[in-house]
Amino acid sequence: MAEETIGVGLLGYAFMGKAHSNAYKTLPYMTWPPPYRPQLVSIAGRNKEAVAEAAQRYGFEGYVTDWRELVQDDRIALFDNSGPNSLHTEPSIAAAEAGKHVICEKPLGRDAEESHEAWQRVDAAGVKHMCAFNYRFVPAVRLARQMIEAGELGEIFHFRGRYLQEWAVDPDSPLVWRLSKAAAGSGALGDLGAHVIDLARYLLGQEVTTVSALTTTFIEEREGTKVDVDDAIEAAVEFSGGALGTLEASRFCRGRRNGLGFEINGSMGSIAFNLERLNELDVYMTGSEPGASAQGFRNVLVSEADHPFWEWWWPRGHIIGWEHTFVHELHHLLSAIRDDGDVAPHGATFEDGYRCAEVCDAVLRSAESGRREEISYRD
Amino acid sequence: MAEETIGVGLLGYAFMGKAHSNAYKTLPYMTWPPPYRPQLVSIAGRNKEAVAEAAQRYGFEGYVTDWRELVQDDRIALFDNSGPNSLHTEPSIAAAEAGKHVICEKPLGRDAEESHEAWQRVDAAGVKHMCAFNYRFVPAVRLARQMIEAGELGEIFHFRGRYLQEWAVDPDSPLVWRLSKAAAGSGALGDLGAHVIDLARYLLGQEVTTVSALTTTFIEEREGTKVDVDDAIEAAVEFSGGALGTLEASRFCRGRRNGLGFEINGSMGSIAFNLERLNELDVYMTGSEPGASAQGFRNVLVSEADHPFWEWWWPRGHIIGWEHTFVHELHHLLSAIRDDGDVAPHGATFEDGYRCAEVCDAVLRSAESGRREEISYRD
Amino acid sequence: MAEETIGVGLLGYAFMGKAHSNAYKTLPYMTWPPPYRPQLVSIAGRNKEAVAEAAQRYGFEGYVTDWRELVQDDRIALFDNSGPNSLHTEPSIAAAEAGKHVICEKPLGRDAEESHEAWQRVDAAGVKHMCAFNYRFVPAVRLARQMIEAGELGEIFHFRGRYLQEWAVDPDSPLVWRLSKAAAGSGALGDLGAHVIDLARYLLGQEVTTVSALTTTFIEEREGTKVDVDDAIEAAVEFSGGALGTLEASRFCRGRRNGLGFEINGSMGSIAFNLERLNELDVYMTGSEPGASAQGFRNVLVSEADHPFWEWWWPRGHIIGWEHTFVHELHHLLSAIRDDGDVAPHGATFEDGYRCAEVCDAVLRSAESGRREEISYRD
Amino acid sequence: MAEETIGVGLLGYAFMGKAHSNAYKTLPYMTWPPPYRPQLVSIAGRNKEAVAEAAQRYGFEGYVTDWRELVQDDRIALFDNSGPNSLHTEPSIAAAEAGKHVICEKPLGRDAEESHEAWQRVDAAGVKHMCAFNYRFVPAVRLARQMIEAGELGEIFHFRGRYLQEWAVDPDSPLVWRLSKAAAGSGALGDLGAHVIDLARYLLGQEVTTVSALTTTFIEEREGTKVDVDDAIEAAVEFSGGALGTLEASRFCRGRRNGLGFEINGSMGSIAFNLERLNELDVYMTGSEPGASAQGFRNVLVSEADHPFWEWWWPRGHIIGWEHTFVHELHHLLSAIRDDGDVAPHGATFEDGYRCAEVCDAVLRSAESGRREEISYRD
Repeated sequence: MAEETIGVGLLGYAFMGKAHSNAYKTLPYMTWPPPYRPQLVSIAGRNKEAVAEAAQRYGFEGYVTDWRELVQDDRIALFDNSGPNSLHTEPSIAAAEAGKHVICEKPLGRDAEESHEAWQRVDAAGVKHMCAFNYRFVPAVRLARQMIEAGELGEIFHFRGRYLQEWAVDPDSPLVWRLSKAAAGSGALGDLGAHVIDLARYLLGQEVTTVSALTTTFIEEREGTKVDVDDAIEAAVEFSGGALGTLEASRFCRGRRNGLGFEINGSMGSIAFNLERLNELDVYMTGSEPGASAQGFRNVLVSEADHPFWEWWWPRGHIIGWEHTFVHELHHLLSAIRDDGDVAPHGATFEDGYRCAEVCDAVLRSAESGRREEISYRD
Repeated sequence: MAEETIGVGLLGYAFMGKAHSNAYKTLPYMTWPPPYRPQLVSIAGRNKEAVAEAAQRYGFEGYVTDWRELVQDDRIALFDNSGPNSLHTEPSIAAAEAGKHVICEKPLGRDAEESHEAWQRVDAAGVKHMCAFNYRFVPAVRLARQMIEAGELGEIFHFRGRYLQEWAVDPDSPLVWRLSKAAAGSGALGDLGAHVIDLARYLLGQEVTTVSALTTTFIEEREGTKVDVDDAIEAAVEFSGGALGTLEASRFCRGRRNGLGFEINGSMGSIAFNLERLNELDVYMTGSEPGASAQGFRNVLVSEADHPFWEWWWPRGHIIGWEHTFVHELHHLLSAIRDDGDVAPHGATFEDGYRCAEVCDAVLRSAESGRREEISYRD
Repeated sequence: MAEETIGVGLLGYAFMGKAHSNAYKTLPYMTWPPPYRPQLVSIAGRNKEAVAEAAQRYGFEGYVTDWRELVQDDRIALFDNSGPNSLHTEPSIAAAEAGKHVICEKPLGRDAEESHEAWQRVDAAGVKHMCAFNYRFVPAVRLARQMIEAGELGEIFHFRGRYLQEWAVDPDSPLVWRLSKAAAGSGALGDLGAHVIDLARYLLGQEVTTVSALTTTFIEEREGTKVDVDDAIEAAVEFSGGALGTLEASRFCRGRRNGLGFEINGSMGSIAFNLERLNELDVYMTGSEPGASAQGFRNVLVSEADHPFWEWWWPRGHIIGWEHTFVHELHHLLSAIRDDGDVAPHGATFEDGYRCAEVCDAVLRSAESGRREEISYRD
Repeated sequence: MAEETIGVGLLGYAFMGKAHSNAYKTLPYMTWPPPYRPQLVSIAGRNKEAVAEAAQRYGFEGYVTDWRELVQDDRIALFDNSGPNSLHTEPSIAAAEAGKHVICEKPLGRDAEESHEAWQRVDAAGVKHMCAFNYRFVPAVRLARQMIEAGELGEIFHFRGRYLQEWAVDPDSPLVWRLSKAAAGSGALGDLGAHVIDLARYLLGQEVTTVSALTTTFIEEREGTKVDVDDAIEAAVEFSGGALGTLEASRFCRGRRNGLGFEINGSMGSIAFNLERLNELDVYMTGSEPGASAQGFRNVLVSEADHPFWEWWWPRGHIIGWEHTFVHELHHLLSAIRDDGDVAPHGATFEDGYRCAEVCDAVLRSAESGRREEISYRD
């Protein structure tokens, strides 16, 4: 049982670089037998000293300070783009056109235009491509999708989603790249809101058709520089299947450490989720027996043997951490590569990344125009 | 200590009539000594048999089938309008112009025009007037207001409010007056959303300045009749102090029995509330000692001796019910009458009822126009 | 529909006196039509000024400073003993032997001996008797009982109960009668633990057969006087049906305002309850459809039209308060009087009060002897 | 920065073997720079095919079917005993006497006698020894300990602990070694209760002095064999510092997937924990400012930069999983080895394993004798 290896080149060694590295190192023994045993060929970053330490720490065979070297490295079959937003599209396209499979962190691009080009060119290259919306790979989220897809919630009336954090409340918090339009494209919108949009699309299997939105920048100057991205967005949205809902993202919510949550209401039941308790799903079902006189939201600890991804982990009730979403995600991608299978529908493709970007753009357009913006998706 | 009495005439014997009656009967001994001892003079309703039974049940001295008789009854000093929405303004105006103090159930009118007239004429009559937004009188809500007013939350960034129920999901649920525009003015908007709007205004001490809204009617026909009111609304809103937020109301949320809730985020803390647990307030405060390393949302059981309204009730931890909001509300009104004091700011006046109606109208306008609607308030 | 009245004489005007008075005043219109309309004949208390004010406040026709006058008052058909523990048995016996129905606050007596005599003599008098274990009349508790009785939980393995408060932590809190053996019989045991014991017996339909217990007095002297009752008890217990469990009571639990709670585990499901959220019941059921892949504790908001006692209150989700347990309890007693029906099994009789006292005595015996004490119940 | 390596030999490849292997593979890059880089020398198990696969899966250089080969292997400096209970003491002693540091899964032995000998002989060998009570290494548990140790809770009155699971309710669940006295020593007691006992000792810094306990076996025969261990235990206990509490363990609690929880009440505050939400700690503190009018249990998401162990993980709010307790635990042990430091007080030593076993033995003795059993600890 000597598994085949797959050469991986990683761009980025910060938050996402650490999370992806951990997943490459964990999946070979946790998702046993693994689709491939990742060979950590090379890691790229601009700071030589830092990237060298990252290579040593995570066990990459080498490191480079120019991502183009990853693209040219024949040992690398999978290009993992965990860099900042401004480096998402160009390296991803180059890698794909060099014949490498590509996974790119979200948001795919800084706007829909950039994202569309990335999708078109990467897809044309004939490689597997994935936009790293890792929250699709939370067991509870996959379970929610399964229930909705099986019709257990009936017709869907509402999706209410929000991603709330608090770090930007402090006026002295440093002017990180996430607060710059050139580097990030947008603020809370692309950083947090993109996750909410992708979950809405994934869970409902519906597209966002209109957006009525507001944005704001509460602290307009930091470190003497004007902040040119949003601190928070609020939007009322319509979905292609007739559901109505809200999309919210903010970095100004005291006490919300990592508050991604959603509630979905259907004719037969409802589902609610909170990332800070990612092993749980709150589920309401109508009219079930037994205990028919005792209906209410069930607090489901998603850790049963037949729950999504759970075969790889522990006995029921032994909860898993946030970083395991990346294990599931990369296992999914490696399986698609091995089997020449589809990344969609459970994995987000670059097309999903592009469609999410269209919604983000519509949020900004609506905030600017004061109008309900209809969204048209390009092929 | 012989308390003075005040003659009360009540219009309506259904849900709200029962709730108000209970409050009149409870407050004389619970809010001891009471501002007045209510004398239940007469109750009005269209169905003679039903109103006669209500009079017997709640201890009214008499009953009438035409509310105009209440207006003409000199024994009555306080006219309590607990009738359906279509009967809110005309009887309230008539009673005030007959010199009676008036409390009217929410929404004040079926639209801003009607509400404005009611406010202007009732106010001109020189009587005390109150719009029965009873959730201002939940101890936890009053505590939230006190904390915000004292600056404990700092600058307010967000108000996120929703009122979710589920009864209309059933296509066979009867075509009650709440589903008719002529009788109710609007659907979930005026019935549920009005409460959210009033709480936002009350808690933040800010006005809603713009609304970007959607409405929908999921079930367009019931009992062979076209439903002409909204089943759900979603709105992104701006406040006069710069806060951003959402207002939501829906009757299509399975499992949400009576889901009025809000979350407020400020620079120094956050507050969350859920009417289904109305004795609790979730409070996050930054940087507090002791336990500085252990910060998180505090689940406050609002039942301490120094908590709002609590002097009248039980030892800590012995929770009170939804109906006690009416006891507090009517105690507040009777005290204002006795002392010739102001109903505002803690009680909602007809002006508050009107201002809420302007926001409701803007929701409908925005849903129709597809534009962000600015709200201007008339004097 | 002229309801008959029943004359009530009440002993005690403090915490329980207020709670019972409120119930007598509320039930005539809330439990409509009521079994009887209570006529508040007279209230007894030692402090003349205070009892006079209570009479005025609650609407009693008269007041007395010696409870014996209530016993001799022919207008009184129901004697309500809401006095302190040391006044539970003698007045209750006297009233019953004078032909009055009797409701007596818990604990029935200060020990099993006293309680047994009260039961024997009151029962021999042929009147209706009730020991006011009001938590049997929480809708969620009645629902739990119904589910267990119907077999929905299967065989019962565990009952885990506790009643935790915090007021006695403060060494300067006054030396109230609840801290005196002569006045109260015991400390947290009879005050709080008795409720847990009664709920265990009521819910399981099983008797406690053995007790292995500890007691302690954390603060041994207050106001210069030695405290001769327990501050806390802990017990491991066996039930007649084979279940094992714990009984706990303490006044030294910071943050637990009124923490009565229990968990029951059966072969087919589990139930958990917390008095601070008395409108809720957490219910786990095995293997239910639909949503079979999504099992977990259901947070049931006990407010459905078909839930116990709910016909008298509000639309679903409009929660009720702690004091309404007394409305249900007294409605139950008045119905039994009217119909010459049984107070048991849903109401606790003096026999239940006695049996509870046997368990309390066994707790003290076991704490003293260091042995597992078997309990035998006298006829 | 070439870290030194340490040779590891692992006994056991099942549940615990997987958990320990994962930790050895994760800690070198997560706890960066690591105290040692573990070299996975050899893994031992009785089933040759299974242990061979485990070696391949987890990356051990070799495998053996007799643990004695690990003891004799000079490349191994750390012997990790993740075998079943019956194999805990003999191999651990042999390894220590061969000069290897030892970590052994809990319970240390099947009874106090066995455990005492293991402690004495391993300690005499002069190696580092650890009993793998991994729940000491939950960040929330360490935070609780820090708060108690710093006096933030004041004097401790109560410890209430329980470990509830449900798998044994099914009469057809297989007769695993955990249901056999010869293999396991005891049932729920040693498997689950031992964790509760260790946490009580660790958190309070007090010893259990007396035990009043019950045990039961609900299903007395499985697969035709008599079950000779407990299914559940309940105990009331006293601590050396005067606190009172309960210890509970059961495998018969429907809906409790992995229900380890405790509550600690002190004169200044309380703490509660639930392993199913292991990233959270509920903390009540008296009298804190700001928000003084809003006190309640704080739901602390233990993921701040200054929280225990959190430096190694993710930004706040990105929760970690159950298995990371082993990463922390083994990092602690490797650090003690590197620095020749003490495993205690944060790590459990074999002495802690022995002391826990004395409490377990006392539970069985008390259940048998019907007496409160005092516990004396041997040196």
